[in-house]
Amino acid sequence: MEGAPSARMRVRRHPERGVYQPEVIEAILDEAYICHVGFVADGQPMVLPTVHARLGRKLYLHGAAANAMFTACAESSICVAATLLDGLVLARSVYDHSMNYRSVVVVGIAHDVTDSEEKRTALRVLVDHVVPGRADDAREPKEREMRATRVLRLDLDEASAKVRSGPPSDAEADVALPVWSGEVPLALVPSAPQPAPNLAPSIPLPDYLSPDRLLRRASRGGSRREA
Amino acid sequence: MEGAPSARMRVRRHPERGVYQPEVIEAILDEAYICHVGFVADGQPMVLPTVHARLGRKLYLHGAAANAMFTACAESSICVAATLLDGLVLARSVYDHSMNYRSVVVVGIAHDVTDSEEKRTALRVLVDHVVPGRADDAREPKEREMRATRVLRLDLDEASAKVRSGPPSDAEADVALPVWSGEVPLALVPSAPQPAPNLAPSIPLPDYLSPDRLLRRASRGGSRREA
Repeated sequence: MEGAPSARMRVRRHPERGVYQPEVIEAILDEAYICHVGFVADGQPMVLPTVHARLGRKLYLHGAAANAMFTACAESSICVAATLLDGLVLARSVYDHSMNYRSVVVVGIAHDVTDSEEKRTALRVLVDHVVPGRADDAREPKEREMRATRVLRLDLDEASAKVRSGPPSDAEADVALPVWSGEVPLALVPSAPQPAPNLAPSIPLPDYLSPDRLLRRASRGGSRREA
Repeated sequence: MEGAPSARMRVRRHPERGVYQPEVIEAILDEAYICHVGFVADGQPMVLPTVHARLGRKLYLHGAAANAMFTACAESSICVAATLLDGLVLARSVYDHSMNYRSVVVVGIAHDVTDSEEKRTALRVLVDHVVPGRADDAREPKEREMRATRVLRLDLDEASAKVRSGPPSDAEADVALPVWSGEVPLALVPSAPQPAPNLAPSIPLPDYLSPDRLLRRASRGGSRREA
């Protein structure tokens, strides 16, 4: 519980699962391919999935310039949640069922990135967040593509993580029940890259899409199991 | 675009990806283990992950009775988003990179479920959503556990899905570039159940946790690839 950057970022439900170290928060953000963005549009709370990427203590989001979500988010206080589901936790009782997960919540003002150099950097970071090495290979954005794209930046000042791992916490009185108890691990697993139908056969699969590299990216080097 | 239940549920960005058929929306909600709930607390939009489950045209959420999120959500208009990430889409240009996904957004009033029979049913549905067959096996909630649990219900009247599948959409002018283009499929994959350290060796792994059943649940019978 100690170390929360603000009262609203303190993990209240299961406070023992709250983690506030920047390196834990950053590792979860780096591993999650996508996040869910919460904002208010016409008085209605809305949540939409999107890609994010971290650079130092900044989090970047991007979308089409005309994107309604981004119009509602820009210069407003929004919330970004990234969640990694690590397993199903089956206790003897319905009540003690749970999940193993690592999640992060960030709140802050979504600033419009208008500096063209920062915007280009953010787009590279977003591509490399998903597939490290890809930004050097893919064609860079043209000027009109840059204009058609909007980038938002959120500082990571107000963030918290929540982590559960390990076996179920069965009540002492339930341990003798004849019910299976344990964890079913889950992992997001990449499979073999599928070339586009119009890809020339002369173009080989890049090193950064090798099975080993894809697997390491998906689990960020196996940090998943050690969390 | 036709068939959106309301203006705010119409998919505006890539309208061709919008899907409004109830059976598509329901299949995505049924496959996703967790959702992200958007609500407003003290004027701040917040997003938190939680488990959901569908019964007919109703969506149930549950949490501790004292849960701050649920206190903020009850009898208010909230948003629930469930997202299945199916693949990374690598186009020749940075600009055309995308992801394959199936996502659902629902908005509506979160009603407090106070009827004890509906509440018990909802808790069974929540357990069976995650592991079909588990609710018949695990110990039922005691009265004090029921009191410590809050259940919220959301109607599925105002919902939409957004689906992308298939190869990248490269611009004609980019197809000749010497850059690999294609999709990296992703799937959430269960691995072998890990018995709790205090599980009696005499208790066998239930049929509903067989590798085949777990895999079928994770992909809801392989609907993932056919979406």
